[in-house]
Amino acid sequence: MAETARIALIRGDGIGVDVAGAAVAVAEAAVAAEGGCVLRWEEIHAGAGYFRDTGHDIEPRGEERAGAADAIFLGAIGLPAVRHADGTEISPHLRLRDRFGLYAGVRPVRAWPNAPQRLADPRAAGIDLVILRESTEGLFYSAAVHGRSRIIGDEEVRETLRITRATTEKLHDFGFRLARKRRDRGRPGRLTCVDKANVFPSMAFFRKIFDEIAARYPDVEAGYNYVDAMALDLVRRPWDFDVMVTENMFGDILSDLAGGLVGGMGLAACAEIGDETGLFQPAHGSAPDIMGQDRANPLAAILSGAMMLDYLADKSGNDRFARAAARVERAVEDGFAANAIRPMEFGGDMGTRAVTAEVIARLEGG
Amino acid sequence: MAETARIALIRGDGIGVDVAGAAVAVAEAAVAAEGGCVLRWEEIHAGAGYFRDTGHDIEPRGEERAGAADAIFLGAIGLPAVRHADGTEISPHLRLRDRFGLYAGVRPVRAWPNAPQRLADPRAAGIDLVILRESTEGLFYSAAVHGRSRIIGDEEVRETLRITRATTEKLHDFGFRLARKRRDRGRPGRLTCVDKANVFPSMAFFRKIFDEIAARYPDVEAGYNYVDAMALDLVRRPWDFDVMVTENMFGDILSDLAGGLVGGMGLAACAEIGDETGLFQPAHGSAPDIMGQDRANPLAAILSGAMMLDYLADKSGNDRFARAAARVERAVEDGFAANAIRPMEFGGDMGTRAVTAEVIARLEGG
Ligand SMILES: CC(C)[C@H](C(=O)O)[C@@H](O)C(=O)O
Ligand SMILES: CC(C)[C@H](C(=O)O)[C@@H](O)C(=O)O
Repeated sequence: MAETARIALIRGDGIGVDVAGAAVAVAEAAVAAEGGCVLRWEEIHAGAGYFRDTGHDIEPRGEERAGAADAIFLGAIGLPAVRHADGTEISPHLRLRDRFGLYAGVRPVRAWPNAPQRLADPRAAGIDLVILRESTEGLFYSAAVHGRSRIIGDEEVRETLRITRATTEKLHDFGFRLARKRRDRGRPGRLTCVDKANVFPSMAFFRKIFDEIAARYPDVEAGYNYVDAMALDLVRRPWDFDVMVTENMFGDILSDLAGGLVGGMGLAACAEIGDETGLFQPAHGSAPDIMGQDRANPLAAILSGAMMLDYLADKSGNDRFARAAARVERAVEDGFAANAIRPMEFGGDMGTRAVTAEVIARLEGG
Repeated sequence: MAETARIALIRGDGIGVDVAGAAVAVAEAAVAAEGGCVLRWEEIHAGAGYFRDTGHDIEPRGEERAGAADAIFLGAIGLPAVRHADGTEISPHLRLRDRFGLYAGVRPVRAWPNAPQRLADPRAAGIDLVILRESTEGLFYSAAVHGRSRIIGDEEVRETLRITRATTEKLHDFGFRLARKRRDRGRPGRLTCVDKANVFPSMAFFRKIFDEIAARYPDVEAGYNYVDAMALDLVRRPWDFDVMVTENMFGDILSDLAGGLVGGMGLAACAEIGDETGLFQPAHGSAPDIMGQDRANPLAAILSGAMMLDYLADKSGNDRFARAAARVERAVEDGFAANAIRPMEFGGDMGTRAVTAEVIARLEGG
């Protein structure tokens, strides 16, 4: 894979199509500007629209082909009007997380200059944290593969929350490595285990394994918080946190909450990383009401693309990918700082294409 | 019960003792000022300290006695240093919720004048919402009775999330009645079902039952939100919400989050109401580090006491209890407005006793 990386591209539904296009254009521009590395995209059809049309949520052999690529890029999946008989939405990406063991859901949250701020305290300008959401088990164990829930007539439904040692060890190890890596870039190097160990044996188990792994990383500051207290601390003093590691459902809630503090889902980049491959996608939904209107904010997708380039550098050993990723991040950072990136989502005048063009112009310069 | 209400009083651990004392004093002063109704308190020992000393988390026949009273008042329970072998904390109150079917966890959140505000937007001064947290099943089904989780060696732990039609019908019905009642007091009269129906069949079931009950309340505006989007909306536009009804674990997280927007847990009152009885307690923890130092903010307990008086009025048909409750709320409101209530928790100079005395002085006047 040294020079050419193969990317499985699932545009999906709604604005997934719009923002995937933007992310591809930016990633292409970044590797072209950098030179010495190439991306090859392989389109795979999947999603709620595909399900409506064909009865399948992904094209034949689509999963195998996605798994065979170096990485998977996804726009967004789901349409509220297209559902399974049990009321849930079409979510082949949950099955991809399960099938490829994409346990490490990495969701960075930072205050970009000139992006909206919700908190009154000026320290909110210093928000720079990562929520590491376990992405294959926890409460989503039930939903990872459609049909695992226990439906008892019209009287009762049960789901299973599952915490395994195998996945939890890898997750916490990932968390400590991430915190260490961020310390090298000037962050505190702190990992907070977010659980509900006071109430659930599964969560006490999650915390026990955290302690075991922590012993191997004496240079990283390890701490705990209960998930309810963490929700409160995220509105009271989010600037005190660096990396936090948590169960799947908790991470889903906390990452939207944290994203909301600094501009909303339009900046919510996401990587889901396993032992063999990684899936990169904005954490936002498919917003079918604004699809195809050049209104969606493409930045979450563009920044997810940068995370993918970083991942490809690690995987291939080709540092050009990492430099291309840094170009993208710098372009977004500088664009915000110069007030040259003004997405409609934040009340600005720039649609999907204008934001994308501005990022591309800047990374070619940088 | 017309004139005399019998209250089971569990002071519990840590500052639970401090704030329960404050709540009792205020409730007594309120019924005395009102006249025509009387409270009789029956002390029951329970909690982590009691467990450490006796090996039991509640005194013999304590549960039966609690259930036989007209209502239960609880300070706070739990000590981080006292745990079960599986790592969880001592939580007899979870068993009380289960045993007495206290499905309706009512957690009001409002912006009091001069209390801390976290959000920059001035509309945050208008926050006035209630989180209705189902409190007997959902993910807590596993934890309601200690020992229900499935522990598989040192390799895996599983919990069960359970949604039943019987409880969910009652819960949503409670929610619609609450929204209607609030509309009569000038609020919008809006009920939002907060779930994760896109992913979990149990949550789609929860929403389906919501729709069924909604049909009986055409005068209440019914809406939906996914729990992750709700966490985001709570930081972006909490003033748009009135009552929201949700699963147990979701409600635990969202109520701390919402409480954090308007001053933190020191104002987080809570009622847990079933068909036969109700339990009233501040939603905060036992904070053993500051116990007995006259530093705890007693307002969450005092306001939980007011919710208890309101409940007693409904239960007994004696309106004096409701007027006593209104006195307490008005005293807190006016005290804040006059900047005469300045709890240490908010950087003020008033300890537990001073805040309590101020509330009592005001309700005797009113
Ligand atoms: C759409 C949904 C399946 C998904 C999830 O809950 O994982 C989304 O909320 C996310 O955060 O990626
Ligand atoms: C202490 C704990 C058992 C409790 C809960 O999770 O219910 C608390 O967080 C609450 O919100 O009342």
